[in-house]
Amino acid sequence: MTAVVQRVAEWNRIAAGIRREEVLGFVPTMGALHEGHGALLEEARKRCSIVAASIFVNPIQFNQRTDYDFYPRVLEEDVAFCAARGVDYIFAPPDDEMYPELQRVFVEVGDTSAHLCGRSRPGHFRGVATVVMKLFQMLRPQFAFFGEKDYQQLAIVRHLVRDLNVPVEVVGVPTVRESDGLALSSRNRRLNAAERSLAPCLYTALLVARQLIACGERNTAAIKERVIQVLQGVPQIRLDYFELVDPDTIRPVDVVEAPVRAAAAIWIGETRLIDNVYCAPRPHSAEKPSSALRLTQGRDDRCRLAGTGSGLEASITSATAPDSGGGECCIDSIEVGATPSA
Amino acid sequence: MTAVVQRVAEWNRIAAGIRREEVLGFVPTMGALHEGHGALLEEARKRCSIVAASIFVNPIQFNQRTDYDFYPRVLEEDVAFCAARGVDYIFAPPDDEMYPELQRVFVEVGDTSAHLCGRSRPGHFRGVATVVMKLFQMLRPQFAFFGEKDYQQLAIVRHLVRDLNVPVEVVGVPTVRESDGLALSSRNRRLNAAERSLAPCLYTALLVARQLIACGERNTAAIKERVIQVLQGVPQIRLDYFELVDPDTIRPVDVVEAPVRAAAAIWIGETRLIDNVYCAPRPHSAEKPSSALRLTQGRDDRCRLAGTGSGLEASITSATAPDSGGGECCIDSIEVGATPSA
Repeated sequence: MTAVVQRVAEWNRIAAGIRREEVLGFVPTMGALHEGHGALLEEARKRCSIVAASIFVNPIQFNQRTDYDFYPRVLEEDVAFCAARGVDYIFAPPDDEMYPELQRVFVEVGDTSAHLCGRSRPGHFRGVATVVMKLFQMLRPQFAFFGEKDYQQLAIVRHLVRDLNVPVEVVGVPTVRESDGLALSSRNRRLNAAERSLAPCLYTALLVARQLIACGERNTAAIKERVIQVLQGVPQIRLDYFELVDPDTIRPVDVVEAPVRAAAAIWIGETRLIDNVYCAPRPHSAEKPSSALRLTQGRDDRCRLAGTGSGLEASITSATAPDSGGGECCIDSIEVGATPSA
Repeated sequence: MTAVVQRVAEWNRIAAGIRREEVLGFVPTMGALHEGHGALLEEARKRCSIVAASIFVNPIQFNQRTDYDFYPRVLEEDVAFCAARGVDYIFAPPDDEMYPELQRVFVEVGDTSAHLCGRSRPGHFRGVATVVMKLFQMLRPQFAFFGEKDYQQLAIVRHLVRDLNVPVEVVGVPTVRESDGLALSSRNRRLNAAERSLAPCLYTALLVARQLIACGERNTAAIKERVIQVLQGVPQIRLDYFELVDPDTIRPVDVVEAPVRAAAAIWIGETRLIDNVYCAPRPHSAEKPSSALRLTQGRDDRCRLAGTGSGLEASITSATAPDSGGGECCIDSIEVGATPSA
């Protein structure tokens, strides 16, 4: 049975009845739930004896009023979604429960918010950090689950918890993707069919960065140039940013010396999409990279996957095996574009 | 038995053994404890079954390195002080427990920190709010006790708790004063004998403001002028600020329409002292003010008290009974100065 709770006072009564040995896992969401959230709920269900999800479209993290106004709100569907996944409680507060009066005090996340989405969305991460802190204080979970899809948000929540000593363990959950590679997002609903067919190019571009790094490219400027080339193959999209960043501090790196996160945001029509992937550099020694994506037979399966059936074709025109052998390849050029037949 | 705890992990083990029906009261301090802290501990002891005090000189709330360096540190005395007052736990973390790495995330308190001490001490209240939040998260008390002496700090902690939904009840405790009116403060230890004898003029000046307001003066500029006159009678002190502020928002008010806090900071030599008092305006109607300080026989007892034995003399040169009768008086002029014989 999934109970919907609207008020903190109500939650406090419930919490008072929860035995100490229970473990509360919390999944904060803005609703419009999809299988990305499903993965968070499943992970919570696996680790915790009680699972609570929150559904709240947080006004203070939106930069654009229209984005806030048009954010999908489908509580009934979301409740059914949670019920089907064994969620115990849904916390769905009205605005006046979260912000009963002028909010004066905010959680400021510093430098971590200066890059990537923080640059295009001033104040966004302050709004995120503040509402996450409020929800943590209201619900007091032992575990909280966040998707790697919003990687900068995950990093910021980790900093928040660490720096303010919040007694909660943050668990990052890998991004869930459509079969063509597009990361699941509530905003995907806003894409029309033509836009949807182009959207996987974001992931493809990130895989190109990953592959270049796995093959030994360390110069960010060179990688960026190649990635931009790939995206310029799809004239209907506009690049907001592409960066390689330190996975903890989210600071852009000029030279890839250690694992980085390749992160990008694009606009397709009126919709902004973000995505990111883990990238490990090829070791300086002759050792094989242990975690980098590998090319086999001159073709990157995931690159092809991202293009298949999406009206896009990722065409790797030349891939030569580098000196290290072992089935790894270096890419000479990749072009992504809408296939004429799509 | 008072136990000294240095690490959060240690506290977590203790907290795990505390029964649910216990009530934890928390008194955060920077040590160098005096009877002002004593009042906080007593209030905590009255309301809570377990009392914890913290002793930590918080580097991120100091504007001046020397102020931080010279802040008195007397842990052994403080432990004895707490033990004598039945404190159960002292949390005295080393710096590396509070700030193990670069602090990136801060609690920003907004406008409330823009006035009074916030103006003279940029970043101070951010540092206070951040460390208070950290300590709340570490110790997780149900009640926390703060002195009214640091009134702006108390207001900010109330905002912090309310806006970030921290599950703790904040209790303000009235200022404890020496017999000559000087508010107790760890910084009083730095005053030499001559400076100490002048220090009560701060409280006297605030009482003048209170009296003027109780007698019907509503114009802040006029009140300020009179208060500054009083303080100018003591050339050895420098005024940092005097303001009448809204007790919740800490915004300066131009016209006193409702109860305000009169707050001031002065420098005596190298020492900065702050103090504040509650001031209720005389009602517009003919009703007697219920809580305002009253003058009897043309003399304000507390004004005299503040001067007595301190080398200061508060001399009220003219006090006439206003139209409302009932023993209230209006002050025409007050002069405060060092008495020649002191």
